[in-house]
Amino acid sequence: MAVYTHVDPDDLAALVARYDIGSVLSCKGIAEGVENSNFLLETIAGRFILTLYEKRVREGDLPFFVDLLDHLAANGSPVPAMIRDRDGIAVQQISGRAACIIQFLSGISLTHPTAAQCEAAGAALGAMHRALAGYGGTRANSMGHRHWRDIAAATGDLDAVRPGLQAVVDEELDFIDAHWPADLPTHVVHADLFPDNVLMLGDRVTGLIDFYFAATDFRAYDLAITHAAWTFSADGSNCDAARAQALVRGYLCEIALTDAEHAALPTLARGAALRFLLTRAHDWVHTPADALVTRKDPSPFLSRLLRYRADDAASLFAA
Amino acid sequence: MAVYTHVDPDDLAALVARYDIGSVLSCKGIAEGVENSNFLLETIAGRFILTLYEKRVREGDLPFFVDLLDHLAANGSPVPAMIRDRDGIAVQQISGRAACIIQFLSGISLTHPTAAQCEAAGAALGAMHRALAGYGGTRANSMGHRHWRDIAAATGDLDAVRPGLQAVVDEELDFIDAHWPADLPTHVVHADLFPDNVLMLGDRVTGLIDFYFAATDFRAYDLAITHAAWTFSADGSNCDAARAQALVRGYLCEIALTDAEHAALPTLARGAALRFLLTRAHDWVHTPADALVTRKDPSPFLSRLLRYRADDAASLFAA
Repeated sequence: MAVYTHVDPDDLAALVARYDIGSVLSCKGIAEGVENSNFLLETIAGRFILTLYEKRVREGDLPFFVDLLDHLAANGSPVPAMIRDRDGIAVQQISGRAACIIQFLSGISLTHPTAAQCEAAGAALGAMHRALAGYGGTRANSMGHRHWRDIAAATGDLDAVRPGLQAVVDEELDFIDAHWPADLPTHVVHADLFPDNVLMLGDRVTGLIDFYFAATDFRAYDLAITHAAWTFSADGSNCDAARAQALVRGYLCEIALTDAEHAALPTLARGAALRFLLTRAHDWVHTPADALVTRKDPSPFLSRLLRYRADDAASLFAA
Repeated sequence: MAVYTHVDPDDLAALVARYDIGSVLSCKGIAEGVENSNFLLETIAGRFILTLYEKRVREGDLPFFVDLLDHLAANGSPVPAMIRDRDGIAVQQISGRAACIIQFLSGISLTHPTAAQCEAAGAALGAMHRALAGYGGTRANSMGHRHWRDIAAATGDLDAVRPGLQAVVDEELDFIDAHWPADLPTHVVHADLFPDNVLMLGDRVTGLIDFYFAATDFRAYDLAITHAAWTFSADGSNCDAARAQALVRGYLCEIALTDAEHAALPTLARGAALRFLLTRAHDWVHTPADALVTRKDPSPFLSRLLRYRADDAASLFAA
């Protein structure tokens, strides 16, 4: 649920006039992307997404995202290009916000992916990683493992979110400090490839979107995030073996993980579950109950974390 | 701000398969229509609006709206047709809601209409009234003047909304009882033709939408509502003479009002202002602060009401 900022039709017409995309035919606020205000913009030349960047995306990061999407599109990943105006500028200003006009991609975000769809998502992630291995850009991961202790502290008393949570998180932070791997293959990764951020038609991936958490980190950590995002029941209590195997199988068709990466997957998945547990708990505590943003329950990521801590967790990553 | 109800992609595919519109290419929740959940649906055949009816639209009223839009479309008004499936059915079920797939219309809702755009809106309203004069359907106006005393009572202490409001409303309800006209030309009218509900490209009206308040009432009352909706500053303090004249002029190009209608316009406009003042005050009091719906401030309609009570109010309706 988004759309925070109103766009005046006259301002919109002036913005669109900077581009070679004809005049505006329609512009409707869409309920996607919790971080930004998004509009489905139709012009004579076709459809686009107009994104206005709200406070969680720093304007200074936008040139990185523009460059990243250019690189991925040039290397065959199905990502939406940020359109440039006649002066070659992608990052604009409207309604007091930085804004981009972005290519529209067909496809639907799945609610209940099948094993075949998980395999396609895994393959799309792997293909994107092959394209990213040759990408020269970098961006520090402000949501990476070095920041989790700070996020936990900024959340306050975790037992107020759920009784007993503080002790689990404290244990887990100690575990991460002791066991996080040091030297796995690293490049810019998506870092948030939930089903919301993958457009599909049937079993085919038509779009990878919402790169605003993209940052430099282990590629296997990105696989672990995607595993946590795609293979569990909605309440996080059950990891579906068929979907998990399919996701990993799809990925391994594109990327040959090293032995060290394979061995690290359960630890990386504990980290992935902890990352979303902590950020959701933080937002749960700090989002006013009357905010337009729907707060996401952190509990399903506690359930995932407990599953990844089990003795047989390595079996969840068998292809 | 809307989109309350989630639509599962599998359920959507099953719904769309009932129609001759090809398979789903995209479906995005849009932030339009405070009463319903709306999605911009793209299929191989084109674009559509998928509307799921939430509690404020009664399912039993939907056949009336389907028939009304059919009649208007057949008579040349730019309204969105409700698409029928292969069995001729327009009202469907999905996600536990009644739902319709509706024709998509280009155009943008204006924030700051010019006089030329007000003239086009007035003309579109008049042309719609000519089409509606021959329409046989009827629907009682549950938001009509006979109900305003009940809405005021259900709101509770109006002084809690704004000090002094109770006395103004009590006076106005007495005035309406004493002076509301009895026998003006009557047929089904839109009854909510705010700029939000008119799509335009430049100075051309491309769509009249959101007929869910349409009901049988005086046509001149519909003109009065449209006058209140289009010709004031955002805070309701100032009626722009040029825009007001243009709106009325556009309408009169299509409809020759009777002398009785002309004479009644200031009273009808007081009623129009009171109607939106009361329903906004009611929703202000009864909408939880944490609801997804943005509450609309009633005060700008108190300002309009005071303007329409002034001695020179008839001048606001000069063409």
